[in-house]
Amino acid sequence: MRVLVIGAAGMIGGRLAASLAADPEPGIEALTLVDVVEPAAPAGAVPVSTGVLDLTDAAAVAAAVAGRPGVIVHLAAIVSGEAEADFEKGYAVNFDGTRRLLEAIRAEPDYRPRVIFASSIAVYGAPFPETIPEEFHLTPLTSYGTQKAMSELLLADHTRRGFLDGIGLRLPTICIRPGAPNKAASGFFSNILREPLAGREAVLPVDDTVRHWHASPRAAVGFFRHAMRLDLERLGARRSLAMPGLSATVAEQIEALRRAAGDEAVRLIRREPDPVIRRIVAGWATRLDASRALALGFAADASFDAIVAAHVEDELGGRIAL
Amino acid sequence: MRVLVIGAAGMIGGRLAASLAADPEPGIEALTLVDVVEPAAPAGAVPVSTGVLDLTDAAAVAAAVAGRPGVIVHLAAIVSGEAEADFEKGYAVNFDGTRRLLEAIRAEPDYRPRVIFASSIAVYGAPFPETIPEEFHLTPLTSYGTQKAMSELLLADHTRRGFLDGIGLRLPTICIRPGAPNKAASGFFSNILREPLAGREAVLPVDDTVRHWHASPRAAVGFFRHAMRLDLERLGARRSLAMPGLSATVAEQIEALRRAAGDEAVRLIRREPDPVIRRIVAGWATRLDASRALALGFAADASFDAIVAAHVEDELGGRIAL
Repeated sequence: MRVLVIGAAGMIGGRLAASLAADPEPGIEALTLVDVVEPAAPAGAVPVSTGVLDLTDAAAVAAAVAGRPGVIVHLAAIVSGEAEADFEKGYAVNFDGTRRLLEAIRAEPDYRPRVIFASSIAVYGAPFPETIPEEFHLTPLTSYGTQKAMSELLLADHTRRGFLDGIGLRLPTICIRPGAPNKAASGFFSNILREPLAGREAVLPVDDTVRHWHASPRAAVGFFRHAMRLDLERLGARRSLAMPGLSATVAEQIEALRRAAGDEAVRLIRREPDPVIRRIVAGWATRLDASRALALGFAADASFDAIVAAHVEDELGGRIAL
Repeated sequence: MRVLVIGAAGMIGGRLAASLAADPEPGIEALTLVDVVEPAAPAGAVPVSTGVLDLTDAAAVAAAVAGRPGVIVHLAAIVSGEAEADFEKGYAVNFDGTRRLLEAIRAEPDYRPRVIFASSIAVYGAPFPETIPEEFHLTPLTSYGTQKAMSELLLADHTRRGFLDGIGLRLPTICIRPGAPNKAASGFFSNILREPLAGREAVLPVDDTVRHWHASPRAAVGFFRHAMRLDLERLGARRSLAMPGLSATVAEQIEALRRAAGDEAVRLIRREPDPVIRRIVAGWATRLDASRALALGFAADASFDAIVAAHVEDELGGRIAL
């Protein structure tokens, strides 16, 4: 069976591809990795091909699906900030691109692949209780979240009609996100760990008491791999679900940093309260009831210590700068 | 101010148009009534123009919006059964048609009309508790319900972005639906009252204990009229809401018929259990918490006696056949 990963040049997509190439799930015979820029081909135990795919190009999407991969992992998206800044581009890629993919699958006769869709906790919108119940409504407060919620609905309907076998994973905020600090409002959750671990300063714009819902890149890769193995009949008609995360305050994150890298690392965090970021973050989920996903075997990170340790191992070659 | 009613040849649309023409809300100076077939022009206190509008025709939608009506009531839809039978047509009208309308509004500079969207309790899908809470998730089990839920998300995002001022009304099942019995699975809820009141037999395919969520055509017209007057800022970001209905069992409906038209009318109901309809109906909402709409001033029917009386007055000229 062949797996098509769309969005394989992205942070999660690239790590998932590398993980699958090195240690393929049973039955996987080949990987095809595509993105708007050609992804790198990881070395591994199965043949890997790479290519360029723009989800706004219907003919290209149809061609990608015509190879009839048994599993399609769809991670491609315009990120939240850009989808908010460019209304049309966000809908064109995040919603219409997803729909184009589902329609291309529907157009293939006698074909019913497994489709694993990367959704997000951005489908939720405040106000909500401290723990968001499994059956809580989706009231996104961004165009990105709206596009993800609309795509979830479409995925469920195409599944119900028998065109494909879909599952949507509502990913927590990814922490520790590797790479340079970015301007995303959520960036500081990663910055305050990643930068001090590398011996650099980081800015904390919110209070230590702020609580949020996190998953490591490793846990996220694990969610997608588990979704490849899972019997999706167990989902019934409700095809998208909250992934298990780790609910932690900024103070708890900082204590994990202290345990891993000492007081010197913690001193690299500079507090610069930012009322705009504080207000944005106040509208975000702090904790989700993910018992459905847990019962289906999806696994969260064990602790923030484990998240920090995984980052040091995967991104820093096991070495803390301080 | 001008009001554009899209779907004005339909059952609710026609009654709303007649009601507005006869007794316009303050500020309404003209009505434009459109549908895929040209609607009748009701007599009234304000000028009424009529026309044909196909929501799959982007140029026609743009032309309809170019007149810059202050209020747009969007009731046009392919019904549930047809949207299930014809996947492409349902999406083309119910979702893409709605999106085309919202996009045409967005394309008009300095224009922010009130948009009142007819949604449906079909956005909910079983399993659910006997009373569906206000914050319950939308997990539709039909393509029609999916299209309505996707349109609700789009309406909220276009409102949030300031392109329009939207509200979505999740209508209960309309009872007593006038006209001939149809093949809709929900048809019997109306048939068992309307037909005996006219001296004709009706078939009841489910048990007397089946409970459902109803609103009369009069109540539905009232919802749309109230949505024209309401300060939509009071909705906050959550722009669609459950309309208040009357939760009643089939037995309660029959007792209302008996009080209005006697035992002879009730004897015209023939029990013919239908396992297919029984199974479909088992997946439908029995009662909703509509306290949000009630707090905003939307009003349900007082009783099934009132629903029957309104039908006799509005549709039978006050005369029961028996």
